[in-house]
Amino acid sequence: MSRTIAMLTDFGTADTYVGVMKGVIQRISPGTQIIDLTHDIAPQGVRLAALSLMNNCRYFAPGTIFLVVVDPGVGSTRRPIAVEAGDYTFVAPDNGVLSYVLAQLGAYQAVELGNPAYRLKTVSRTFHGRDIFAPAAAHLAAGVALADLGGTLETLVRLPVPEITLSGRRVTGEALHIDRFGNVITSIGKLNWISDHRLTLNPVFNPMLGVMPISPENVVVMTNDHEIAVLHRAYSDVPRGELMALVGSDGYLELSVNQGNAAQRVDIAVGDRIVVELGEPDAAIRD
Amino acid sequence: MSRTIAMLTDFGTADTYVGVMKGVIQRISPGTQIIDLTHDIAPQGVRLAALSLMNNCRYFAPGTIFLVVVDPGVGSTRRPIAVEAGDYTFVAPDNGVLSYVLAQLGAYQAVELGNPAYRLKTVSRTFHGRDIFAPAAAHLAAGVALADLGGTLETLVRLPVPEITLSGRRVTGEALHIDRFGNVITSIGKLNWISDHRLTLNPVFNPMLGVMPISPENVVVMTNDHEIAVLHRAYSDVPRGELMALVGSDGYLELSVNQGNAAQRVDIAVGDRIVVELGEPDAAIRD
Amino acid sequence: MSRTIAMLTDFGTADTYVGVMKGVIQRISPGTQIIDLTHDIAPQGVRLAALSLMNNCRYFAPGTIFLVVVDPGVGSTRRPIAVEAGDYTFVAPDNGVLSYVLAQLGAYQAVELGNPAYRLKTVSRTFHGRDIFAPAAAHLAAGVALADLGGTLETLVRLPVPEITLSGRRVTGEALHIDRFGNVITSIGKLNWISDHRLTLNPVFNPMLGVMPISPENVVVMTNDHEIAVLHRAYSDVPRGELMALVGSDGYLELSVNQGNAAQRVDIAVGDRIVVELGEPDAAIRD
Repeated sequence: MSRTIAMLTDFGTADTYVGVMKGVIQRISPGTQIIDLTHDIAPQGVRLAALSLMNNCRYFAPGTIFLVVVDPGVGSTRRPIAVEAGDYTFVAPDNGVLSYVLAQLGAYQAVELGNPAYRLKTVSRTFHGRDIFAPAAAHLAAGVALADLGGTLETLVRLPVPEITLSGRRVTGEALHIDRFGNVITSIGKLNWISDHRLTLNPVFNPMLGVMPISPENVVVMTNDHEIAVLHRAYSDVPRGELMALVGSDGYLELSVNQGNAAQRVDIAVGDRIVVELGEPDAAIRD
Repeated sequence: MSRTIAMLTDFGTADTYVGVMKGVIQRISPGTQIIDLTHDIAPQGVRLAALSLMNNCRYFAPGTIFLVVVDPGVGSTRRPIAVEAGDYTFVAPDNGVLSYVLAQLGAYQAVELGNPAYRLKTVSRTFHGRDIFAPAAAHLAAGVALADLGGTLETLVRLPVPEITLSGRRVTGEALHIDRFGNVITSIGKLNWISDHRLTLNPVFNPMLGVMPISPENVVVMTNDHEIAVLHRAYSDVPRGELMALVGSDGYLELSVNQGNAAQRVDIAVGDRIVVELGEPDAAIRD
Repeated sequence: MSRTIAMLTDFGTADTYVGVMKGVIQRISPGTQIIDLTHDIAPQGVRLAALSLMNNCRYFAPGTIFLVVVDPGVGSTRRPIAVEAGDYTFVAPDNGVLSYVLAQLGAYQAVELGNPAYRLKTVSRTFHGRDIFAPAAAHLAAGVALADLGGTLETLVRLPVPEITLSGRRVTGEALHIDRFGNVITSIGKLNWISDHRLTLNPVFNPMLGVMPISPENVVVMTNDHEIAVLHRAYSDVPRGELMALVGSDGYLELSVNQGNAAQRVDIAVGDRIVVELGEPDAAIRD
């Protein structure tokens, strides 16, 4: 069985861009299974694609090839690359879209997709997804070795991490994404609820913060200095229609309305500041 | 060859929720074919999902596993279940989303998805699609027996059926769904046009109505006591742009405009009342 | 391994129309790989579907079966057909949706899908995608011969080609499509940039035009007699946010904004006139 290809793009599915990339893959590597992670990253949303890839990568089978095309610099001098790290391989433009997942996975080997034998014969200036990236992923799926695709690269473009700051007992982040349900996913994470109710902030984003003891009852979420929500553990912990905060399934602080739309309720857009005020830990937790 | 998994959710495809569920499936059961029935059920639209499943199920191959995640109660006490009925298996929350298809298929066996061996190691409170439902469906596809997933359940949550009433020669229903083309699909059905032009109402919805003789020429569709459309058999039976009623491909009465948008034309929204006035059967049919 | 089916429809993916067609395919031909070219052709957009098919067909593996359902005439007398041409097979309504790709591929063999053995047992009047077209494609994928599907057809419906006229040094076309990124794809093509900077107009659309020598520096694109853009070769050739024209990845003249939305910038809609003014060729090219 050939390796699976998981696609993550900003092409949408209303045009034929994604469909023809799949045709190219199937022509080069018949029978390869293709999974759509999503194609609806906002146009040129390199950072959200980088976050989505980091959050979801580990759920896929070892050997999966991620074909990531969010590529505002297509046709410029930015390099097309393939990278092996951990159990996975990534094919993408070298614009930072891989930098979060690579920080998570550790050591990697990278090549530039320079070998014309693994591109389509004619390469356009505007659609490298079809002409360069899909063929590379398909050849990898069919068994071609990474080193055959092109010359080794030592350093890759890195993306700045989403801003998150700690001042006193305030953590300030931003709204990263609003999902279909109106949940507002923030940059404040990776919060891991563990048995002793300690807040572990993701070392990828927050190497300086370490582990902070908090009491969930005392955590409040604010925008513009107004308290807007307290922390709960599941949507159903509050009555239908009530605003709340919780730690979402990827470990980020989210604003949600039980069976409603939080983004509309609090009028928050991507990029807006979100502040978490950490109350005094209670006695049980201080012990 | 492993069994196919057909997915029906309200997750949309703009986020990565569906994509990561597919990654989980492929990791547990490599090579399993996955079909998207749709992911665009309106958020928390349990009833429409139940109808969609009932209407489409029988077109799939015997052995298909339906992975149905429309789950406003995620994280609450509602139970995750797997059910075998007829030639199919269903994995879903126990919120009634399976109740229409199970009424159609007859006898069933149900278990609660309680066995932690068939969940992901870490189960979030907000995304059981990824952590409980997709793993269960994947393990079933890979050959795990239903009984291994958890303890037997005797009774499941049932959803009320869409309202439809008969008074004299009037049948009153409601608009259930407006499709991409603007067709208004109503709860009035299952109408089966058979050779003698008799109207058979679906026993699932209308156990009391039985078979009514009607003349297609005399059936009119009304809202607010205004006649809006007469019954035809195909879009092309009327001039382009004209409003009509017909029996759609799933057997429900639909309002349509030939190559136009009926919902916009008659200003009907989901939930609005639709009345069918049945005329006197003609002589040929009374005989 | 069975043949791949590539789907191109106007059904969207919000309803279950596409999903149930895939169920029908998998029931008839288990394990067949299905690729979505797109399902978001504008409702009843036969011409755009025809163009999309022509532009993308050659990227798919030989043997691919294209299942094309953009079918405003469903239920009327228009014929359901299957056609073999070049390395591909097509299943579609006979409404011209195949006429561009067939002009490109040359000789073909066509049959009417008249054999009831390769339809579903019950055929609705409103959803031939499920009841006639998907079964035909699936049976072809499973090995049924074209001739078994029905009687031979000699002539098929042909669609008018998008208007493009040449007057003096002006080429007048129209906006055919606006993609997700706001790029305006025009009917002016197929422009092939070759080494000597000559403009080759697609013989499918422009049999009378032949090869015209031009200088890229002198080509300007106009609407309403206002010059709006000059020709470049890649989005990144202009500063971010600047309007430009280029030859897109399918060979058509496009209006684009580097990392922006051209359709919004110039307020162009599908069907609007686009004029290319060809300047005097420079010396190097005249030689």
